[in-house]
Amino acid sequence: MVVLGNDYSGQDCGLARSLEIVGERWTLLIVRDAFYGVQRFNDFQARLEVPRAVLSARLRALVDHGVLERVPDPEHGGRSLYRLTERGRALWPAVHGLISWGSPEDPPPRTHRHERCGTELAAGGVCPACGGTPPPHEVVTERSDPSRGRDDRVSVRLREPRRLLEPLS
Amino acid sequence: MVVLGNDYSGQDCGLARSLEIVGERWTLLIVRDAFYGVQRFNDFQARLEVPRAVLSARLRALVDHGVLERVPDPEHGGRSLYRLTERGRALWPAVHGLISWGSPEDPPPRTHRHERCGTELAAGGVCPACGGTPPPHEVVTERSDPSRGRDDRVSVRLREPRRLLEPLS
Repeated sequence: MVVLGNDYSGQDCGLARSLEIVGERWTLLIVRDAFYGVQRFNDFQARLEVPRAVLSARLRALVDHGVLERVPDPEHGGRSLYRLTERGRALWPAVHGLISWGSPEDPPPRTHRHERCGTELAAGGVCPACGGTPPPHEVVTERSDPSRGRDDRVSVRLREPRRLLEPLS
Repeated sequence: MVVLGNDYSGQDCGLARSLEIVGERWTLLIVRDAFYGVQRFNDFQARLEVPRAVLSARLRALVDHGVLERVPDPEHGGRSLYRLTERGRALWPAVHGLISWGSPEDPPPRTHRHERCGTELAAGGVCPACGGTPPPHEVVTERSDPSRGRDDRVSVRLREPRRLLEPLS
């Protein structure tokens, strides 16, 4: 076993297998932004400020692992859109659990509420009002204080209320 | 901003803040094992096979960030027990979300069920029977097939049904 290598092959566990796919640096932030509707390379780049070669490698790995699908961008010939697959969308409870844990303040910097119930989700993406775990397209997110947060062109557009997965463009 | 450094300081988001604490390699596997009742350095080491210096650094960081607390081991003078704090236990929905996502097969290699309802938890740790998110001490975990999985002395003891957080010793 290569310790501190690229895998956790000695660990027969779902968590280790998840981390082999989404545990690399930046990967979960890319997945988060895909939930927020980011689909274009340049839009991921504007928000994450990650080197283009790193972003490119991470997107490729996510496509290879079936988390994102790559389709031609109808508005920009030769470019691609990256969209969460069904398998990728299944990461929502984990992603929300981590967003929520890192936002213990009240209100959190960004809220995520079940559109139908109007209720802020509890950790793991469960709706305290109806007891269900709404799929991402039934979740509305917005910045609690739109005057705060990053001010790149993508983040500015993500300040207002929007449904998850709704394309940014 | 140091890109690919040790922080995501340009990212004003709960997810980035979580990853600054639990996004380092091995850290979430240590937290997982703490949920499974592992408390001693040598027991973490037996199961993770991580170099002692790495394990030591990760445990120290988790204590510094208030995820684990370090208390004297009553059975081994001079040694310590590491236990999840309330803040650490709040990671359960995220940890379960990642375990669940990495275990798409049916049955998963390890099950996690709400003891009262007897029902396998859905992603994010929600109980489909009662609609609640049971706290970890109400969750029973076991290997689906006890003849499989790692065979180190700690993993062998984790094959049988046990409540989360119940100390291994």
